[in-house]
Amino acid sequence: MDAVSRIEQTLSAALANGEVAGCPPRLAAALRYAVFPGGARIRPRLCLAVATACGGGNDTGIADAAAASIELLHCASLVHDDLPCFDDAAIRRGKPSVHRAYDERLAVLAGDALIVLAFEVLARAAANAPQRLGPLVMTISKAVGMPSGIVAGQAWECEPRVGLADYHRAKTGALFAAATVAGAAAAGVDAEPWRELGERLGEAYQVADDIRDVAADPQELGKPIGQDAILGRPSAARELGLQGAIARLKQLVNGAIASIPACPGAEELKAHIVMEAQGLLPKELARRAA
Amino acid sequence: MDAVSRIEQTLSAALANGEVAGCPPRLAAALRYAVFPGGARIRPRLCLAVATACGGGNDTGIADAAAASIELLHCASLVHDDLPCFDDAAIRRGKPSVHRAYDERLAVLAGDALIVLAFEVLARAAANAPQRLGPLVMTISKAVGMPSGIVAGQAWECEPRVGLADYHRAKTGALFAAATVAGAAAAGVDAEPWRELGERLGEAYQVADDIRDVAADPQELGKPIGQDAILGRPSAARELGLQGAIARLKQLVNGAIASIPACPGAEELKAHIVMEAQGLLPKELARRAA
Repeated sequence: MDAVSRIEQTLSAALANGEVAGCPPRLAAALRYAVFPGGARIRPRLCLAVATACGGGNDTGIADAAAASIELLHCASLVHDDLPCFDDAAIRRGKPSVHRAYDERLAVLAGDALIVLAFEVLARAAANAPQRLGPLVMTISKAVGMPSGIVAGQAWECEPRVGLADYHRAKTGALFAAATVAGAAAAGVDAEPWRELGERLGEAYQVADDIRDVAADPQELGKPIGQDAILGRPSAARELGLQGAIARLKQLVNGAIASIPACPGAEELKAHIVMEAQGLLPKELARRAA
Repeated sequence: MDAVSRIEQTLSAALANGEVAGCPPRLAAALRYAVFPGGARIRPRLCLAVATACGGGNDTGIADAAAASIELLHCASLVHDDLPCFDDAAIRRGKPSVHRAYDERLAVLAGDALIVLAFEVLARAAANAPQRLGPLVMTISKAVGMPSGIVAGQAWECEPRVGLADYHRAKTGALFAAATVAGAAAAGVDAEPWRELGERLGEAYQVADDIRDVAADPQELGKPIGQDAILGRPSAARELGLQGAIARLKQLVNGAIASIPACPGAEELKAHIVMEAQGLLPKELARRAA
């Protein structure tokens, strides 16, 4: 089965465990709505690519669970970031955001339930390999919680003074770093050396996101463009100009590839990352940059 | 060290892991504000009492971590339940609720971060006993997530039709059941037989909560009374009358005690539960009921 099918199937199975008699049906529906149809599933595909490169891609479902866990947390953060008290986003992935499609209460609860599910899916999958569960739970906690996970990243938006590096590292980098570290941990190899790759890719993704926000087709993007300027958020595309930002993206991707630790599947992983990076740019820009 | 000191110390140490350079300071402050000073810490004390009764009360910090995890989740649920889109509560534990003291965004994020921390504290403590982590993570996930954890319980408030038994079992019973099951799991004994005790105590607590809402001194309670009637919530005290509700509470506590599985410390555990049950009633009522 290809990586995307494995991810979709693991996510669906994780949700199905909660969709049983006695569950509140609107919350169940909101959870599935928040997860499907997905975006590009960049983080879980990166996680599986690393697990495979480390030789553990077919191992006992733990790699699939790690990938799904990271995507569930990403979905949770989108649902909560879209809330009226934050971005008040009406549209996400080309359809109404969860609080618009359901209501604000269900959006708060859906985010909470997705965070819980991210840990549950790991514990289920690790039943036969208990020694891998601790490192995975620690990796995931670090990516989401205090002091520098995605929740901390979002919290920088509530501070009078924002450390920009801290903000980006936490808001975007943390979950990419978790994707590479968890992929290696799921494969049972020494995982920390994989953090740098994730951090660099997270930074690259942030630059690409800034580029898309100024240069994408809203239809292709699935949400409105120009939000960074409207919301006064820092943006590489505005600071460096469009061409400067594209050059910076290339530099970051090359640095990421150079940081890949020695592993059996390094070449395939490099190819995966190059292909992914091309996919990060709006189609028209990617064509011109190629 | 007594149980309360162990709990307070474990909670404080868990928060301290996130209070480091590079963390967003207002979120760090909101987290500590949400956890300290605590309420009665009923659930974590129950968890420790069960772990001790099972012979594992002094074991390697896992029992302390399980107790802290349950209290962190309880605090998270209070912060999110108090949000404007739910109860819009101004006061909690005798001081402004988190969204009033900080803001709504930090209240959403504080709840999220506390959920994550509840899992992190388990993974840290289980580093030397990895085989106990999986059952603990599964127990905690079940208590909080879908289909019948406290998040699902809160979600019943968003449904057009509410299954009252499902609602109470999830909203209150789930975390009490987790307290007894996690206490046993932390002690390394067969944990599922302990679920009934927690469920019965959860039901007793719910009845006591309904009694306090009609009969307590708001000063003693730390929040306004009469909320069930105002918010149209079901209430044993309104359905059975005050004396009927007190009789029901006694019956539930006796049933809980009768359900305690065979264990080395059964007598001390019974004494703990009897004393706790007396503490659940407003002081004046407890004096008259005794």
